[in-house]
Amino acid sequence: MSKIIPVILSGGSGTRLWPMSTPERPKQFLSLTGNVSMFQATAARCADRELFDPPIVVGSARHADLVDTQLGEAGRAQALILEPCARNTAPAIAMAALAVASDAPLLVMPSDHAIGDEAAFHAAIAAALPFANEGWLVTFGIAPTHAETGYGYIEMADPLADDVRRAARFREKPDAESATAMLADGRHVWNGGIFLFRADAYLAALAAHAPDILAAATHAFEGAVRHGNRIAPTDAAFAECRSESIDYAVMEKAERVAVVPVAMGWSDVGSWDALYAIGTKDADGNAIVGDVRIAEGSGNLVRSDGLRVSMLGVDDLIVVASGNEVMIVPRGRAQDVKRFSVS
Amino acid sequence: MSKIIPVILSGGSGTRLWPMSTPERPKQFLSLTGNVSMFQATAARCADRELFDPPIVVGSARHADLVDTQLGEAGRAQALILEPCARNTAPAIAMAALAVASDAPLLVMPSDHAIGDEAAFHAAIAAALPFANEGWLVTFGIAPTHAETGYGYIEMADPLADDVRRAARFREKPDAESATAMLADGRHVWNGGIFLFRADAYLAALAAHAPDILAAATHAFEGAVRHGNRIAPTDAAFAECRSESIDYAVMEKAERVAVVPVAMGWSDVGSWDALYAIGTKDADGNAIVGDVRIAEGSGNLVRSDGLRVSMLGVDDLIVVASGNEVMIVPRGRAQDVKRFSVS
Repeated sequence: MSKIIPVILSGGSGTRLWPMSTPERPKQFLSLTGNVSMFQATAARCADRELFDPPIVVGSARHADLVDTQLGEAGRAQALILEPCARNTAPAIAMAALAVASDAPLLVMPSDHAIGDEAAFHAAIAAALPFANEGWLVTFGIAPTHAETGYGYIEMADPLADDVRRAARFREKPDAESATAMLADGRHVWNGGIFLFRADAYLAALAAHAPDILAAATHAFEGAVRHGNRIAPTDAAFAECRSESIDYAVMEKAERVAVVPVAMGWSDVGSWDALYAIGTKDADGNAIVGDVRIAEGSGNLVRSDGLRVSMLGVDDLIVVASGNEVMIVPRGRAQDVKRFSVS
Repeated sequence: MSKIIPVILSGGSGTRLWPMSTPERPKQFLSLTGNVSMFQATAARCADRELFDPPIVVGSARHADLVDTQLGEAGRAQALILEPCARNTAPAIAMAALAVASDAPLLVMPSDHAIGDEAAFHAAIAAALPFANEGWLVTFGIAPTHAETGYGYIEMADPLADDVRRAARFREKPDAESATAMLADGRHVWNGGIFLFRADAYLAALAAHAPDILAAATHAFEGAVRHGNRIAPTDAAFAECRSESIDYAVMEKAERVAVVPVAMGWSDVGSWDALYAIGTKDADGNAIVGDVRIAEGSGNLVRSDGLRVSMLGVDDLIVVASGNEVMIVPRGRAQDVKRFSVS
């Protein structure tokens, strides 16, 4: 039986964590949740070489050196597939699937999520693996903790085994009413974008439901220039590919799709608000990193990578000082800072 | 008749305008209220050489070069008296009085106040001058605009002439109730720390009411080292002098004290709140200087001398970014930032 090959998707730009997240160093490469970056933490979750082969990383060419540096020699990627441009997850995963043996199980993971309970994650992988090996497309459903409107949901149907259920339906980001109903009915989980399937199962599903994406990815991959572990697909062929998520291109349409629900302290770290939620707080509820002084203030997230920040009498603010930039926004409005990141 | 000699008191440390105001460059030397510093604006108010001699500046030795640079060659001080240490206004003014002819009228001014209506100021000086020449100690009383508890007040007695009244009493910073009553009765003005008197009148009042201060100042001044226009009093003698304000040492006790009430757009620029009050605001009530972006926010004072500050959805904050420091405090709490300045 083949070992699992981690496929780390690292193409995100993370504009919602501006000003720390920048095009040169997007959020997955920053140490926002601990001493290592979220990208490093993602790789470290699959460092057990009894179970996992070295990872395949799919990301932007501009971050290739950063990927090598952050993985180090010991954690070196078996392949680093350099996307010439962003085409969402379906083509990215297709190239990873084309790079490996057809029966290899691929554990596809975003590189910019946090997982607090690694044992729960590994247990879910163990539950999913037999189904993946039988050709199922398995997705991991995050047990919802509130009626979130910012995520997609997966409706679960009958159990296939303990902790494994058939997927009934994928749903886009819902309105508040639908989110509340889905939270209440116990049949829905969040779509965390983590998958386990055999390479050939994914490619077959692509062939059935998005043959144009498979054709473009194959074309780009066949013309790829290889140098060491780096694989640079043909620019023009990749650029012609439709930009599509794996959910929309494959998962929503395929037949044999399973869900493993899991509660594992997951966060997409999708905003400074999300980072506050999972951050360590002091007695006043302030989450502080860097040279920060707060007098008579509570509930603030303050991060500085150099400047000294002094605050008095202010509550529930997000303050981020990075390089030459200072950003101030109330907690709850952090989604809107991406406005600033493009100018 | 002698011309008026401006005496610019420049010894303040301005900790309440931290982080822009620092011991190396206190607030009077910063361009906070316009294109020139408050110190330069103070000198410029007395630049008419028909009426005024070149100024005497009394300040800290560490700022001597800054004083010369900011005054420039054309505005060069006739004397720059270098205080070895801070001993408040009574000794500082005594040394200025000892440096000039005994019948010279001295216009004593703090260097860190703003005056919006210069014509009103000059009219008040014209009204005060005959009394000063006759030996009165004249103070300028700021027409109060609200029940301020942060200033001293002067109670005015009978008129001595149009726009000139005898001073009845000096009052320390009042409580809110007293301030409201003083605002209502029309007999009280704010003590702005601006004075006009002959040098000999001041020295005589010192001799009568604070002879120890006169003795110490005289001792320090007689032993002073002179170099160009710089006068460095004897350290030890000056250090021994009691630290006392002119108000307490002389004005509250002397006999012939007059008040010229004047409404001249005065501000002591004593805090970021005070600076917001006199600052230019945009349509949203934001007072901005520097590289600052505000989206969906109003009533903010934001100043940056280099960093880019981006704010979204926050109101009524004071944000000051200077050098390596970022300070955030709600409007109304600006008095408290001096806490940060000492650490």
